[in-house]
Amino acid sequence: MSELRKDPVTGRWVIISQERGGRPLQEEKPAQKTDHKSCPFCEGNEKLTPSEIYAVGKVGRHKNSTGWDIRVIPNKFPALRVEGEVLTRGENMYDKMNGIGAHEVIIETPEHSKSGALLSVEQYKSILLTYAERINDLKKDLRMEYILIFKNHGLSAGATLEHPHSQLIATPIVPKKVLEELSSAKKYFEFKGRCVFCDMINTELNSNSRVVYENDNFIAFCPFASRFPFEIWVLPRSHDSAYEDISEKEASELARALKTVLGKLNEALSNPDYNYILHNWPHKNNDRNIFHWHIEIMPKLTKIAGFEWGSGFYINPTSPEDAAKFLREVL
Amino acid sequence: MSELRKDPVTGRWVIISQERGGRPLQEEKPAQKTDHKSCPFCEGNEKLTPSEIYAVGKVGRHKNSTGWDIRVIPNKFPALRVEGEVLTRGENMYDKMNGIGAHEVIIETPEHSKSGALLSVEQYKSILLTYAERINDLKKDLRMEYILIFKNHGLSAGATLEHPHSQLIATPIVPKKVLEELSSAKKYFEFKGRCVFCDMINTELNSNSRVVYENDNFIAFCPFASRFPFEIWVLPRSHDSAYEDISEKEASELARALKTVLGKLNEALSNPDYNYILHNWPHKNNDRNIFHWHIEIMPKLTKIAGFEWGSGFYINPTSPEDAAKFLREVL
Repeated sequence: MSELRKDPVTGRWVIISQERGGRPLQEEKPAQKTDHKSCPFCEGNEKLTPSEIYAVGKVGRHKNSTGWDIRVIPNKFPALRVEGEVLTRGENMYDKMNGIGAHEVIIETPEHSKSGALLSVEQYKSILLTYAERINDLKKDLRMEYILIFKNHGLSAGATLEHPHSQLIATPIVPKKVLEELSSAKKYFEFKGRCVFCDMINTELNSNSRVVYENDNFIAFCPFASRFPFEIWVLPRSHDSAYEDISEKEASELARALKTVLGKLNEALSNPDYNYILHNWPHKNNDRNIFHWHIEIMPKLTKIAGFEWGSGFYINPTSPEDAAKFLREVL
Repeated sequence: MSELRKDPVTGRWVIISQERGGRPLQEEKPAQKTDHKSCPFCEGNEKLTPSEIYAVGKVGRHKNSTGWDIRVIPNKFPALRVEGEVLTRGENMYDKMNGIGAHEVIIETPEHSKSGALLSVEQYKSILLTYAERINDLKKDLRMEYILIFKNHGLSAGATLEHPHSQLIATPIVPKKVLEELSSAKKYFEFKGRCVFCDMINTELNSNSRVVYENDNFIAFCPFASRFPFEIWVLPRSHDSAYEDISEKEASELARALKTVLGKLNEALSNPDYNYILHNWPHKNNDRNIFHWHIEIMPKLTKIAGFEWGSGFYINPTSPEDAAKFLREVL
């Protein structure tokens, strides 16, 4: 079982997961494999994965068989496992915890080569509703303090398999970055009496220099302090802290926003590697006023080097105004 | 001029530096160039760089000529510039600041292909004393709040030129990561009455399962909560907050420690890409008890993916105990 360890200086947690050392290290290779036969995420290869947790597919379909549109499975090399109790203990001056949690893979399509831009709005909607479904299910497990949904696309973004997929990791503690975001948003709320994200949306709509896309319910813009060239945030226009409460209509609109924005990135930067991360509230927190869920998309065009590691500053060679202008004009 | 921008949610600062867009993007290429003739850091090519700030070399040598062992120059594509005043201003709800600071390159050797493991202990000592020299000089500039020294080795660590070099960036604000480290170390001091790093050194010497190397004045170990496989921290055994106060004797010992540890990494992992970062105190801070300077070495064997970005957790497939055992046995 993996182990959670806390750095006594920074309070940062680390998952020491020797099981993950066994996963396919495609990072070493110059290009990713596109071999459908051996891909565990392809339709027809359902037996190559752990038994599925959830799926969207044909009526009457049997579990772990073909005929699915989306399939959620446990990660074969999980960073955290569901079985067991959350136990914390000390070792000399240090703190550790056993590696309880959940680590799931959301296979976004049965088709190996159908990456982001090629998926339909309907398929995106289905993926987005699956995220909500899995969060709602895992929230029932009271050991879980946070549920993080993210996507790694391409080698430099940390993907080890090419077949389109996103991931979910549920942790027995609220992660440091989430706490930091929450605490800053709270300070802003206490000072202004308003949600910082709602204020950003209004500011962006007024200045209009960084907006990339908008529809009835969603807005996408390059944030004022973008860490990366072509970084994009997608937010619901109305204040909402809990992603998992998304309605069918909102999921349609978000699907359209995400497909458009990822399509623009794909077109502008020739299929760049990227991560996207759903920044959702910690679901046991009751103060729904301060946090506003959103998706942060981070293309991997620059390297994180010593300066970024040492300072937490980022150096971005492309202004968000230029990036947004470029993206607005694409397609 | 570049611009510093603050993210209103997290308080994270970003340097929007369009000038750096013009630097050679060797990241795009599969391997780094090893062309001595066009390398601006090679002896004989002094005219290809901005005029030098400092050098160690032959007695009577002229500035910007051959005959040097170490040469410090302004970065040709600086993230921050020395000229100007530190001005902060608002833009709607956002904060920004002009890009004042310093960005220097420390060329570690006149020889292009003499990477870390091949440099002598004497040359290392000279590099380490140069770091102290530059910090002491820049401290006199009262606009500078923090001076960060770091090294990017290899493409995946963010190096754009192969010739061995480290960098210095001085910033007009104390970086977020430094403040966090300081604030945590302070909390520990308030609770225990002791420096957290001093306690770690004692714990590591007692358990001895993560120590990689030690000599009279320095210790190197894989930290308990290592973020990365084969991460190593090098610390002075006695409490000291200010790196720039290093003595000749200590610099010799540190040179020996650094050369040994980097040599072991080189041998064990076949010349891995890595960053190292000098974690020094913010020099205007007067509380010298709480912080203990050290060097963090981070080999780049794993990718930072969505989970790390979203949570601040790290997943490390190699336990620090295994890594330290392996490194102790190498050489």
